[in-house]
Amino acid sequence: MKSSHEFYLVYTLSLLFGLTCIIIVTTWSKGYRGGFAWDGSAKMFNWHPVCMVTGLVVLYGNATLVYRFPFTWSSSKFILKLVHATLNLGALSLAIIGLVAAFGFHNKMHIPNLYSLHSWVGFAAIILFGCQWLLGFLAFLLPCTPLWLRAAYKDLHAFFGLGILVMAIAASVSGINEKLIFVLNVPNSTGPYKNLPPEACLANVLGLMLFCFSLTIAQMLLKHKWQRPNACGTVISDATEPLLTEN
Amino acid sequence: MKSSHEFYLVYTLSLLFGLTCIIIVTTWSKGYRGGFAWDGSAKMFNWHPVCMVTGLVVLYGNATLVYRFPFTWSSSKFILKLVHATLNLGALSLAIIGLVAAFGFHNKMHIPNLYSLHSWVGFAAIILFGCQWLLGFLAFLLPCTPLWLRAAYKDLHAFFGLGILVMAIAASVSGINEKLIFVLNVPNSTGPYKNLPPEACLANVLGLMLFCFSLTIAQMLLKHKWQRPNACGTVISDATEPLLTEN
Repeated sequence: MKSSHEFYLVYTLSLLFGLTCIIIVTTWSKGYRGGFAWDGSAKMFNWHPVCMVTGLVVLYGNATLVYRFPFTWSSSKFILKLVHATLNLGALSLAIIGLVAAFGFHNKMHIPNLYSLHSWVGFAAIILFGCQWLLGFLAFLLPCTPLWLRAAYKDLHAFFGLGILVMAIAASVSGINEKLIFVLNVPNSTGPYKNLPPEACLANVLGLMLFCFSLTIAQMLLKHKWQRPNACGTVISDATEPLLTEN
Repeated sequence: MKSSHEFYLVYTLSLLFGLTCIIIVTTWSKGYRGGFAWDGSAKMFNWHPVCMVTGLVVLYGNATLVYRFPFTWSSSKFILKLVHATLNLGALSLAIIGLVAAFGFHNKMHIPNLYSLHSWVGFAAIILFGCQWLLGFLAFLLPCTPLWLRAAYKDLHAFFGLGILVMAIAASVSGINEKLIFVLNVPNSTGPYKNLPPEACLANVLGLMLFCFSLTIAQMLLKHKWQRPNACGTVISDATEPLLTEN
C-alpha cells in the first residue's frame, strides 16, 4: 500500500477513536451524571471530563499532526505553523475551562483543589502545555528568533509535545478511575464500582479508547516515513529554512 | 558535549529517578502500609505496587535501552538480544508476582478482580507485554524466522515497547491514586487524602518520579542520534544483518 494511503488509514482510525471518546464522555456526563450547568454543582464538574477529553486529548492529539499530512509537505510552512498554534490554543482553552469547572465545583463544595495525584499530573500537563505553547510561539512564529535557538529547541518541542499527550492520558485514566470510585461507592448509587454497573463499563471503555486514540497519534508522530522527508530521510529542520517561508 | 557523554548523563538521571521510585514505593509499603507478607492480607497486597514499579516500570524501562548504549554498537548482537530478552523476562516475572499479590488479597477479602479502570489498563499492559516478549523471542531469537518477517515486525516491536511503558505509567498513576483514596478516606486513617497527609505527599511524589523516569527513558529511545547508526543515520535493520551475527 502507498505510504500516504497508509497514513490516511491510520488517521481515519484515530478520528474514529477520538470521536468515540468524545461521544462516550458526553454520554457519561449527560446520561449518567445529570448533564451540564455552570453553578458550582456536580453538573458544573461534568464539564471537566468533557473539556479535558475533547481539548487536552482529542484536539491536542490532532493539533500535533499538522506537519504529518503528506499534502502539506509542499504547502506554506507559515500557514501550517499558524494552524498548529491555533488548534493548540483551542485545546489549551478547553483544558483551562475544564480546570475552572473542577475548581468551581470544589470551591462550592469546600473540597480542596489539587490534592490527588490525578490533579497533580493533570495540572502539570496543563502548565507544561502552556509553557510549550508560549515557547513554541516565541521560537517558531516570531521572525526575530535566532535560527540557532530555533534549531536547538525544535527536538525538545516535539519530544515534550508527545510527553504532554502521555501525561494527559495518565491524568484521564486516573481521573476516570477516581470519579467512578467517588460516585459509585456511595449509598443510592447504581451499584458499587466492583459490581461493574453499566456506567462503570462505559467509563472504563472510555479509558481504553483514549489509549487506542493516543496509540494511533503516537504512531503517526513517530513513524519515520511519515515525517517531512529530506534527502537522508530525516526531518527537515526549521534552521535550514528561511523564516516565514512560503514553501 | 560528546553525544555518548550526553547519553550517559541522561542514563544516570534515569537511574537516579528509577532508584528513587523503588525507594519511595518500598518506604510507602513498609513504613506506612505495614510491610510485607504472603497470606492474603493487606500486607500481601503491598507486594503489588513494589513489584509493579520495580518490574513493569523501572526494570522494563532499563531493558528497553539495551541497544542504545554506544559501547554496544560494536558488540555481539546476539548477546545483546539475550540480555534484552532476559531483563524483560525478569520484568515480566515481577509484574506477574505483583498481579498474583493483588489477586491473592482480593480473593481472601472477597473483592472482585479486574473491575477498575486501573486494573483494566494494568492487565492489558501485562498481556501486551507477554505477547511482546513471546513474539520478540520468535521473531528475533529463533534462527528459522524468515528475514522478511523479522524486518516487518521490528518497528512494531519497538513501537509497542514504548506503548507498554506508557500503559504501565498510566496504570501506576491510577493505582497510586486509587490506593490513597481507599486507605486514607476511611475512619482511623492518618487523615483524609484531601488534607494531604505525609503518606499522600510521598505517594504523589512517587507518581511524578515515575513520569520523570519514563521521560528520560523515552528520550533515550527516541533521540535519533542515540539509535544504532548506519550511513544515513537510520536504525540498522535486523533484516540487513546475518542471523545470530557476532557483529
